[in-house]
Amino acid sequence: MSEKTIEWIAVDWGTTNLRCWAIARSGEVCDQAESNQGMAAIASVKGDFESALVTLIQPWLKDGQTIPVMACGMVGARNGWVEVPYDTVPCPPQTSRTRVPTRCGEIDFSIYSGVKQVSPADVMRGEETQLSGLLSVAPDFEGLVCLPGTHSKWVTIKGGLIHGFRTFMTGEVFALLAEQSVLRHTLAADGWDESDFATGVKSGVDSPGDFLNQCFCLRAEALLEGLDGVAARSRLSGLLIGQELSGVKDVSDVVLIGAPHMAKLYEAALAAVGVKCQIRDCGEMTLAGLGRGLF
Amino acid sequence: MSEKTIEWIAVDWGTTNLRCWAIARSGEVCDQAESNQGMAAIASVKGDFESALVTLIQPWLKDGQTIPVMACGMVGARNGWVEVPYDTVPCPPQTSRTRVPTRCGEIDFSIYSGVKQVSPADVMRGEETQLSGLLSVAPDFEGLVCLPGTHSKWVTIKGGLIHGFRTFMTGEVFALLAEQSVLRHTLAADGWDESDFATGVKSGVDSPGDFLNQCFCLRAEALLEGLDGVAARSRLSGLLIGQELSGVKDVSDVVLIGAPHMAKLYEAALAAVGVKCQIRDCGEMTLAGLGRGLF
Repeated sequence: MSEKTIEWIAVDWGTTNLRCWAIARSGEVCDQAESNQGMAAIASVKGDFESALVTLIQPWLKDGQTIPVMACGMVGARNGWVEVPYDTVPCPPQTSRTRVPTRCGEIDFSIYSGVKQVSPADVMRGEETQLSGLLSVAPDFEGLVCLPGTHSKWVTIKGGLIHGFRTFMTGEVFALLAEQSVLRHTLAADGWDESDFATGVKSGVDSPGDFLNQCFCLRAEALLEGLDGVAARSRLSGLLIGQELSGVKDVSDVVLIGAPHMAKLYEAALAAVGVKCQIRDCGEMTLAGLGRGLF
Repeated sequence: MSEKTIEWIAVDWGTTNLRCWAIARSGEVCDQAESNQGMAAIASVKGDFESALVTLIQPWLKDGQTIPVMACGMVGARNGWVEVPYDTVPCPPQTSRTRVPTRCGEIDFSIYSGVKQVSPADVMRGEETQLSGLLSVAPDFEGLVCLPGTHSKWVTIKGGLIHGFRTFMTGEVFALLAEQSVLRHTLAADGWDESDFATGVKSGVDSPGDFLNQCFCLRAEALLEGLDGVAARSRLSGLLIGQELSGVKDVSDVVLIGAPHMAKLYEAALAAVGVKCQIRDCGEMTLAGLGRGLF
């Protein structure tokens, strides 16, 4: 841990993980900590959100001092610590936040609102903070932002506002197909082949209606022709991301905000259909967003 | 059990179930029996296929007499009793069968070959028998046959031959999404709404590339507007079958071979896009097919 004074604590509390950063006034990260106490793990045992948080950040707290703790993500969902309302598009990201009372006197804990779209119905919790971070480093940005993941988001930003967005269940469907469907016998557990991935992307973009058939073809090709497991895994990943791209109209310049692995995957998918993108690290954008409303 | 003499035994041995019928020379079904000893259950414990079969059909066997037993389905797959080769399209259904030696002297056991297509790679095991049954009752049939299920098949029949076919993982993906994905919180466990189903079918047919987004919209609509669980289940089922229909080119008159529930579902989906169909019961087609090569 750096010797600088910790000014506030940033918390990215998603479905699966709890990530915390101790931040100095300069914005420098003094320390970080992470646990598997995501929203789902705590909700499933009706556990105590405050204990999970304080256990992780205890070393950063000082008796008699109250430190701001700014959180985003599924911690504000219906099954989270407190259900925090949604802001409604069109709106700036992080329009509002909700202060949550705590037993621990050393923290002043707030959760940023998620964002909803009424028609077509859609919701986000956490991504709005990354978008806020993007606007803090590029205030004049306008265009399309992709936030790939379990549930990928495609967001249109105009005039500093989230104008509209769409969520695709791409990552979740990939995991279900790879681990639970008949394709589990066909796909390698990991590994990636760039050329097979690009083939999958092109098929997905060109003929999205063939998706449920092309999945089974991977199984049949493995049975009949010994299709390699890494090739099958890469093709399936490409088919799914390609199908997603075919659903996003008018894709041209895109900003990708994602973890390095996911960003690389989507960069390759966009390259396969001739679209350029600029990558921003999702951790950096989250920190920039969480700190934005603070000072 | 009828008093008529049992002439042969029909066996439909799929991934999940083992179904047997005792048949008289006239074709009359004298008796039937069923167990959950499908291919997967036996393969998973490296069990004994012959014991599972003989346990079920023992009451129909007579000392000193050998009775033909004709089987189709996944019992002939790599993890089945014996791996039986595939016939290759274009071919008549049930071109060949493989006799399997047994310890039990009272049965003469054969498994019909599955059918494969080299490009695009595809396979079937069991459906070829239903197609053979269709051709036994309608020898001049030409056109498109749909066999809905966990893995739906669309088959083109020309001049008594299986000309080509495509498999769609529609039923399996529906079950994964309904039971294992984030949509499990949104979907009712059963129930069906005709109008929501038709809405889903039309969306699936018109914009298959939006599928991964439309799935998430069901979740968002439930969160924001209290979308009913039966409506969500019906829409998801429609979206998937609609996507399948968008992948099958030039759908006009269709023969549907399926269990009553599945056939009704696909009949409604086809009606939603203005396509007529004729339904044949899959049990009847299986029996007609299994008996076809016997006498």
